[in-house]
Amino acid sequence: MTTERDLSRLTSGTSPLRIEGRKVFLLDQSRLPEQTVFFETKDLDSMCFAIKEMVVRGAPSIGVAAAFGMAIAAAEAASAVDSRQEFIMLINEAKKKLDQTRPTAINLKWATDKMIERAESLLTSRKPPLSLKTIADELFNGAVAMMEDHLVRNRTLSEHGAQLFVKDARVLTHCNAGSLATCGWGTALGVIRSAHQMMLNPSVFVDETRPRNQGSKLTMWELTEDGIPSTLICDSMSGQLMAQGKIDLVIVGADRIAANGDTANKIGTYSVAVLAKHHDIPFYVAAPLSTIDPSTTSGIDIPIEYRDDSEVKTIEGHYTTVKKARALNPAFDVTPASLVTAIITEAGVLKPPFEKSIKEALKKGIKK
Amino acid sequence: MTTERDLSRLTSGTSPLRIEGRKVFLLDQSRLPEQTVFFETKDLDSMCFAIKEMVVRGAPSIGVAAAFGMAIAAAEAASAVDSRQEFIMLINEAKKKLDQTRPTAINLKWATDKMIERAESLLTSRKPPLSLKTIADELFNGAVAMMEDHLVRNRTLSEHGAQLFVKDARVLTHCNAGSLATCGWGTALGVIRSAHQMMLNPSVFVDETRPRNQGSKLTMWELTEDGIPSTLICDSMSGQLMAQGKIDLVIVGADRIAANGDTANKIGTYSVAVLAKHHDIPFYVAAPLSTIDPSTTSGIDIPIEYRDDSEVKTIEGHYTTVKKARALNPAFDVTPASLVTAIITEAGVLKPPFEKSIKEALKKGIKK
Repeated sequence: MTTERDLSRLTSGTSPLRIEGRKVFLLDQSRLPEQTVFFETKDLDSMCFAIKEMVVRGAPSIGVAAAFGMAIAAAEAASAVDSRQEFIMLINEAKKKLDQTRPTAINLKWATDKMIERAESLLTSRKPPLSLKTIADELFNGAVAMMEDHLVRNRTLSEHGAQLFVKDARVLTHCNAGSLATCGWGTALGVIRSAHQMMLNPSVFVDETRPRNQGSKLTMWELTEDGIPSTLICDSMSGQLMAQGKIDLVIVGADRIAANGDTANKIGTYSVAVLAKHHDIPFYVAAPLSTIDPSTTSGIDIPIEYRDDSEVKTIEGHYTTVKKARALNPAFDVTPASLVTAIITEAGVLKPPFEKSIKEALKKGIKK
Repeated sequence: MTTERDLSRLTSGTSPLRIEGRKVFLLDQSRLPEQTVFFETKDLDSMCFAIKEMVVRGAPSIGVAAAFGMAIAAAEAASAVDSRQEFIMLINEAKKKLDQTRPTAINLKWATDKMIERAESLLTSRKPPLSLKTIADELFNGAVAMMEDHLVRNRTLSEHGAQLFVKDARVLTHCNAGSLATCGWGTALGVIRSAHQMMLNPSVFVDETRPRNQGSKLTMWELTEDGIPSTLICDSMSGQLMAQGKIDLVIVGADRIAANGDTANKIGTYSVAVLAKHHDIPFYVAAPLSTIDPSTTSGIDIPIEYRDDSEVKTIEGHYTTVKKARALNPAFDVTPASLVTAIITEAGVLKPPFEKSIKEALKKGIKK
């Protein structure tokens, strides 16, 4: 069984989840970078609150937090009831509560589904039957294993990616694809972290990533905590840095990758990719295989979420424009595969043509 | 002599200077877009305060405001002293005071120099000599004429530029090259304004222009006041709009244009130019001939001002990143002439090769 020490071996110092025995602490990401406060999820309700109020954010981190929420609910149920039927009913109620916290987060539902499957299997598969207390313990271990699996994949892809770094590489990244979003290591930021660990001495330019400033708030915090040299810039400044020869490579994460390699990621990624192409600078996407959706043929099929225009019209709650102004707020954009130099996954570094390399990688999966 | 009514014929509804008789009112630009407050410059000191505290901003507007400051000082001197020597001494002291308010603003010094020249000429050229009161009046008229000259040049270049607009053009602009900066009409925004007047029905996407948000604060305010359809976007969003075919042309102002057409403008302009090139969208620079510096051979010779990093690390006074973070804050970038489709001036629309067309335009000047 995976122990707590095993997990900390895989995480960076900026992990958004801290497991101590059976206790789960979440780093309150809504208060970063001003305050580093841990939030103890004492019961199911406090975990639901933490997910809903964005104490924890980032799809993989939310998924794992929800799995721990299920384990906490199972322990509560095991103390409260004796009947196996009542136990599974309480667990299903917990899943409903958790699923409602962030209704569009697909990783969340995937994680709570997995935990229900595991609970049902534990309830029926053993003879003599396991005690409810033991089942709750096993569910907790299941959440730990889910977190470990994420981390192992992130670490593996990060080591693959770091091979692409020259010594002293000056790297540009956009948004936050780091430890905070991915329960302890990172994808784009994971690769940078691994390159740093391997003494390759990368330094990082960080786009502030308007309108929600994940770059200035989260990525800058992670890099500062890890002692990786970093410089904050406005999104409009990267072109000039490229023209001045100050950027050696670009690396970003991904929200969804189509079967042909077209990549949806935080708004602004596409502009960075065009600029990189213009300056002949490699543009890498780092993401676990689970980000690839083989049923999405190309980027045209990826729906783009438009968020409330108040995010663009205000900054930290203050209006920066005419109140009645019209504003546009697409949350993502799609970078065509033709602008992507390589996709870094736990199955290796995928090169064009991506239709072929993606298909092969999905077949192969991760070597454990 | 130019009258007040003559000037209002040339300005838009968003003029940063309002002249009523001998009174000069400045629109307090530091309070836009929340408040539209006019500041009366009752004496030399209040004009110095207004320039220093950025009640008035934008190089041409500052220059004209300083010229009015000199005229106000002359009226004060004419009431206070009888000696022509004391009069010119007081005017020279006023120049010193005004020049110190924004020591790097070249238009300011140019304007106060012109007023000193004019004062000296008026003091010596007539027989019988003009009264000090008449000289002060003539200096006021000189400031009005300077403003009129700016406006005529802006209007002329704007009418040339509007010829490039197709009907219903969807235009992208960056920063503020509008009425506020240019004492009443605008360069990039002047062209849009003229196209709107000519019923060409342009609509405008406005980059917010981090870090100082001149796009969201000033350009959006001007367009809203003039009833020109406008949409605010983050600087990172224009690439995606171009890819979606939603932008027909880009138009920006300029801080300095080299003899070969390389153009220094607000940081982020270069990225927009690269994106426009990638999507085969025309990229226009609109600027009066005075912006062209024939002694600057190419963009390499244009020094780039780096401003305090706190502008990048904070928004409206709030930190958005780790306090000790490093940040970079170039105020301008240089767009090479190869990315510029045409330069719109009061002498006409200049096309590549710019070495040749710029030289010819400077020779020709403006037709009055």
